[in-house]
Amino acid sequence: MTFNSILDTIQTYEAGKPIELVVREFGIAPQDIVKLASNENPLGASKKAIEAITNNARNAHLYPDDSMFALKEGLSQHFNVSQQEIIIGSGSDQIIEFCIHAKAHSNSKVLMAKITFAMYEIYSKTTGATILKTQSQSHNLDEFLEIYKAHKPSVIFLCIPNNPLGDCLDKAEVFKFLKEINNDTLVIIDGAYQEYAKAKDSKKAICPKELINTFPNTIYLGTFSKAYGLGGMRIGYGIAKPNIIQALSKLRPPFNITTPSLAAAIEALKDQEHIQKTTQNNLEQMAYYESFAKEKGINYIPSYANFITYLFETPLNSSKIADYLLKKGMIIRNLASYGLNAIRITIGTKNQNEKFFTLLNEFLEQK
Amino acid sequence: MTFNSILDTIQTYEAGKPIELVVREFGIAPQDIVKLASNENPLGASKKAIEAITNNARNAHLYPDDSMFALKEGLSQHFNVSQQEIIIGSGSDQIIEFCIHAKAHSNSKVLMAKITFAMYEIYSKTTGATILKTQSQSHNLDEFLEIYKAHKPSVIFLCIPNNPLGDCLDKAEVFKFLKEINNDTLVIIDGAYQEYAKAKDSKKAICPKELINTFPNTIYLGTFSKAYGLGGMRIGYGIAKPNIIQALSKLRPPFNITTPSLAAAIEALKDQEHIQKTTQNNLEQMAYYESFAKEKGINYIPSYANFITYLFETPLNSSKIADYLLKKGMIIRNLASYGLNAIRITIGTKNQNEKFFTLLNEFLEQK
Repeated sequence: MTFNSILDTIQTYEAGKPIELVVREFGIAPQDIVKLASNENPLGASKKAIEAITNNARNAHLYPDDSMFALKEGLSQHFNVSQQEIIIGSGSDQIIEFCIHAKAHSNSKVLMAKITFAMYEIYSKTTGATILKTQSQSHNLDEFLEIYKAHKPSVIFLCIPNNPLGDCLDKAEVFKFLKEINNDTLVIIDGAYQEYAKAKDSKKAICPKELINTFPNTIYLGTFSKAYGLGGMRIGYGIAKPNIIQALSKLRPPFNITTPSLAAAIEALKDQEHIQKTTQNNLEQMAYYESFAKEKGINYIPSYANFITYLFETPLNSSKIADYLLKKGMIIRNLASYGLNAIRITIGTKNQNEKFFTLLNEFLEQK
Repeated sequence: MTFNSILDTIQTYEAGKPIELVVREFGIAPQDIVKLASNENPLGASKKAIEAITNNARNAHLYPDDSMFALKEGLSQHFNVSQQEIIIGSGSDQIIEFCIHAKAHSNSKVLMAKITFAMYEIYSKTTGATILKTQSQSHNLDEFLEIYKAHKPSVIFLCIPNNPLGDCLDKAEVFKFLKEINNDTLVIIDGAYQEYAKAKDSKKAICPKELINTFPNTIYLGTFSKAYGLGGMRIGYGIAKPNIIQALSKLRPPFNITTPSLAAAIEALKDQEHIQKTTQNNLEQMAYYESFAKEKGINYIPSYANFITYLFETPLNSSKIADYLLKKGMIIRNLASYGLNAIRITIGTKNQNEKFFTLLNEFLEQK
């Protein structure tokens, strides 16, 4: 059987290794495995969200309210935007997919940073669009602007802070850049890690309402997967002007969120104290990662997210380090597939982080 | 902002009205509303599945095992196929989407019955493919064959039993039809309601293993949303030869199933006793719907699924009936949007069904 030729160009996304796989492959007991690979919230979800899932287990046979009225109402209040300016996705990933399918096609161009969230490229390729990338490792808006002017892409991705590197543009420079962009180019501001960035430095905070009111060609993406601790429930959201939301809604499959996920997100949003605890733990524990790196002479990228990237120099090799840690039950993300001799570690709890320091130290001393 | 012109052709899927909406619009208390509109299992999910959701609530922050090893293992044993012959989707809907995007494009054709599951057409239109439809109300394979020979579609949909009408092709006639189809046409056998059809008449049963081994250009779709009672958890599956599964897997977004959903599906599959109870209740209660229709002189379509379609004649009008019932807190599906003067009622529990009979009777006697 033949398939559309576009499939030949698509690479499957390489997710962080799940604990289940390490159990199966290395025979390590689940309780002895620490996963700091997928930027999950080490404190878990809000107790209220967990309760909402439990309370909705008996409604598992009922399709969710596909209008998602209650969640949109909550987001509408939280961000001071109207319900017509909100779309809900199965993770913000799915909203990336809607954006791409609404704007890109085989004759259009999509612009993104050299190293950024892999799904931007994967979804773009399903349309046959040409991918344009900047040269610099960090988000460089001068390069973005130069490529924009030369190629007029129909979609631009800015990941603020950037995953998997952790660097973060200032709001002021983003707004300055956006002034240069034509109204028919959709600019996607991926704020998956904004809660962490805001907590560290208010200059990084992007207010979705201000963003879309100033630049009606933008969409802000947020997620419940990171600071809200609901990565396993698959809920993200997009905030944009109603004309954009209407177009994307045509591509939203019915019932794209599960019944317990909807209930969990509604409760998680109400528990802002949990977000504060989460970002507080993140800042405190991040400091240990910075000290450890300095002490051992490892380069790192100052991070505005809930992970940190350690950059190695030969003879140190990120793949060898990742393998060593994996066999000891410590899962982190090797960034070799991004062309980097680096690893990305999710900031965990104190205990989890100490296990990481012990194991990496062990590896370094063996050398 | 302009969007891809394909969006202009897409109509949004009209889902069954959720209970939440009736609460909001008519001020009826949730406990007084009966929803027989979305073919949900009135017995709910297996207790084991509900327990699995509760037990996994505290893992809400963890991404699911994206290899879905345990669920594939369960399905592999249940259907006696290999894990390489299985793909998991966010409902079988999502696998329909993968199939369409893998095979269809703006120059190809997709063949389906005149009245069938609306998402076939909605997903097909996103690729710009031409939609071909048979003329008959029920699945007529002679018509399918004639159109196939004249137009060589790249995808054919057979819904067995058919939603929203309930009629069901025999396995023997399906296999006879498939012999005529070229190996490069993907035939999608949508078995969302097969558990119910099988329980009523073994001639309707389609075995996925036999299907794909006899016709390697087919894919069997199953779901946990209907007999398994997990409509709110969004889990479906496709069974096909490995070359097809590999192609579709390229289009699968990572983490397309939630963590509690995976756990629930694994447990639901083990509880075949619950499926037996479910199909038993369905057959028993379906008989009351047939008697009621006969008694009142209402035409109906003998159904092999968990719903029944009542066909009205003027002056009776399905929209008026649906509105009347809705205001009384009884949600059923008006089929006016399919061009029919008909309603589709999900077979509920004895109490739910009796409420329906009482209310419909009330309406009929008012006339």
